[in-house]
Amino acid sequence: MALTVMKFGGTSVATVERLQRVADRIIRKKEAGNQVIVVVSAMGKTTDALVSMAGEISDRPSKREMDVLLSTGEQVTIALLAMVLIERGCPAISFTGWQAGIKTEDVHESARIGSIDTSQIRPHLKEGKIVIVAGFQGVTESGEITTLGRGGSDTSAVALASAFGAEKCEIYTDVTGVFTTDPRYVAKARKLKEISYDEMLEMAYLGAGVLHPRAVEYAKNSHIELVVCSSFTDEEGTVIKEEVAMEKAKAVRGLAFEKNVTKVTLLGLPNSVSAVSRVFDAIADRHINIDVIVQNVLDEEKTSLSFTIDHDVLNETVDVLRTQEKELEFHHLIFESELAKVSIVGSGMASNPGVAAQMFHALAAKNIKVKMISTSEIKVSTIIDEDRLLEALDTLHETFHLAEQESISL
Amino acid sequence: MALTVMKFGGTSVATVERLQRVADRIIRKKEAGNQVIVVVSAMGKTTDALVSMAGEISDRPSKREMDVLLSTGEQVTIALLAMVLIERGCPAISFTGWQAGIKTEDVHESARIGSIDTSQIRPHLKEGKIVIVAGFQGVTESGEITTLGRGGSDTSAVALASAFGAEKCEIYTDVTGVFTTDPRYVAKARKLKEISYDEMLEMAYLGAGVLHPRAVEYAKNSHIELVVCSSFTDEEGTVIKEEVAMEKAKAVRGLAFEKNVTKVTLLGLPNSVSAVSRVFDAIADRHINIDVIVQNVLDEEKTSLSFTIDHDVLNETVDVLRTQEKELEFHHLIFESELAKVSIVGSGMASNPGVAAQMFHALAAKNIKVKMISTSEIKVSTIIDEDRLLEALDTLHETFHLAEQESISL
Repeated sequence: MALTVMKFGGTSVATVERLQRVADRIIRKKEAGNQVIVVVSAMGKTTDALVSMAGEISDRPSKREMDVLLSTGEQVTIALLAMVLIERGCPAISFTGWQAGIKTEDVHESARIGSIDTSQIRPHLKEGKIVIVAGFQGVTESGEITTLGRGGSDTSAVALASAFGAEKCEIYTDVTGVFTTDPRYVAKARKLKEISYDEMLEMAYLGAGVLHPRAVEYAKNSHIELVVCSSFTDEEGTVIKEEVAMEKAKAVRGLAFEKNVTKVTLLGLPNSVSAVSRVFDAIADRHINIDVIVQNVLDEEKTSLSFTIDHDVLNETVDVLRTQEKELEFHHLIFESELAKVSIVGSGMASNPGVAAQMFHALAAKNIKVKMISTSEIKVSTIIDEDRLLEALDTLHETFHLAEQESISL
Repeated sequence: MALTVMKFGGTSVATVERLQRVADRIIRKKEAGNQVIVVVSAMGKTTDALVSMAGEISDRPSKREMDVLLSTGEQVTIALLAMVLIERGCPAISFTGWQAGIKTEDVHESARIGSIDTSQIRPHLKEGKIVIVAGFQGVTESGEITTLGRGGSDTSAVALASAFGAEKCEIYTDVTGVFTTDPRYVAKARKLKEISYDEMLEMAYLGAGVLHPRAVEYAKNSHIELVVCSSFTDEEGTVIKEEVAMEKAKAVRGLAFEKNVTKVTLLGLPNSVSAVSRVFDAIADRHINIDVIVQNVLDEEKTSLSFTIDHDVLNETVDVLRTQEKELEFHHLIFESELAKVSIVGSGMASNPGVAAQMFHALAAKNIKVKMISTSEIKVSTIIDEDRLLEALDTLHETFHLAEQESISL
């Protein structure tokens, strides 16, 4: 009998009425002859409410106690969903993270799953019960409650799918799938039938926000086929897997973007690896994330270094750099805000050398100035002015024919 | 170093602001040189809110899942209280029921504690941390979450006091102690300095409502001194222990009472033990509690049987009896509602044979008719008309000099 893992996010389980609709879907899956493990998040705004209570107490509440606090959110959902199913005559049983044997490393607020002891759940699956597991949480070897951080419930679902050898892991959410780009920005954005793990990772890291990158990485490493689909409609979703069919001509699968980008440039830095790494160390010490990095060698002795950060951490970044101006040995610090990052993503890019050039031509044709460039095997990112973002997305969506249906492998 | 267990009920921890006040009290206790274990209930109306969500789903929700659901209430409190203490520089750590090693029997919604594995908590006490434990909950050998039923947090506190060899167990609540009778009914009601376990048990079973009888029984069996006091004032509370000083003359410690009592009488029942037990079996099958029982033998063949029930279950009781009229072999069923039960309670009663007579004289002097009588070693209960309750309480409080200070042993 095939085993499917179904994961429902916070909006999908926000009310008792929505739990009833989730139950419909679970019962249909079960009646189609599957064993079913369901992973759920906390209901609607529960987690926010708990975080805000902790915020009343402390600006930096104990991480251990935050995990004890937040893990109650999913525990409420599993119990209520089990009640709904049982009330409808469908045998079901709930498991918290520790009851489900989800063992994590000894880190609070962003633990990684180490292993899953399947012995508690297996007998219940064999008896034909729907097994409902609290997402986002686990337990350390010594019995400490941990949580997995942002997107943690997706990761729980993939880890359970892997541990139980599930056929696939279905992620039910409030969108109908993964799109070529955000439909709120580009009217012609089209839902993809398929996307590869690597493409999805680039899309996710670049701000597509449907699935957490850690969950995608986990799925890639454990060869679990993911399906992203809507909890509210019966539309077909997007399949995320290793090999995806692709027309030769369509090297680009989608466009990712981020707003609120600021570029920081340090001028007159000594031209040495150690000088550059001192800068990044100073920033990393404050847990500030930097993204695109460009270094220009001006002459043998001096170099300029630019990198992008989220605008929200600009003050902190400037503060760190200015207070260490002497040690870091730069002459000037300049920054530019109100920028955006636009990226084209596609596994076919590696074998299509003209793709980056096509991107720059398209942007140049619209007179959109490219301020920084960063590339990987399967993506090209550009930094542009934020007020040109919509135009850039439109023209790139057009240039790479993203609105047109791709061919599908059999 | 002395170890104290402090238990705070739902009203005492209802808001973050109240948690701050609870923290004051805990820190004072700690700074006085004690090791401290704190047991807390769910915040304010949390449990009611969870019960009501389950009620939206089912009239009889799965008991296992109810325990998973309700146990989140105390888990929220322990985490927040730990945060409050840590924020104030006082090392603290929270434990859920399962983390604290509170093992129960395999029964849902009203499990009894079997044992407590102290190995998880001891090292933290030794390090000087405040240990905060979720009341009301435990775990079975096989890892099922259980709850202890009504008054369960009191029981958790006493059980922990016993397992850790605490000096005493302090129950902080919204009253200042145990009174001679309910001060809302009798203006002269006086707070007791001391009361024995057995007296407290009778007071509790008879509706005094401050402490759950199971917690008192547990304390009695494990020789744990209980203190009932207010979380909101610094008034001295009431000590509950084995031996309590007592003037010879003052055989009665307090008055307990219950309203909403209905008396049911079956006439013409066969005069045999089996006939009577069939009646009680039929009622017990429907989980209806009966209280005072009186049997009158009319002649060698026939008997009449009266018992009291809560008025709320009258319809169900009549229904059970009428549908089995033939099998139960009674001739008539009559009932009388709007009755009350008034009881005098005191360990000194056994050695003061005149006490019951004094009670009846006092009631007779006010022309209050006694409809049923039931006695034990340390209490005498009478059933009277509910509209005479206040008069009865006043006259008995007067008769037994309950408003006067008792002498205290040194």
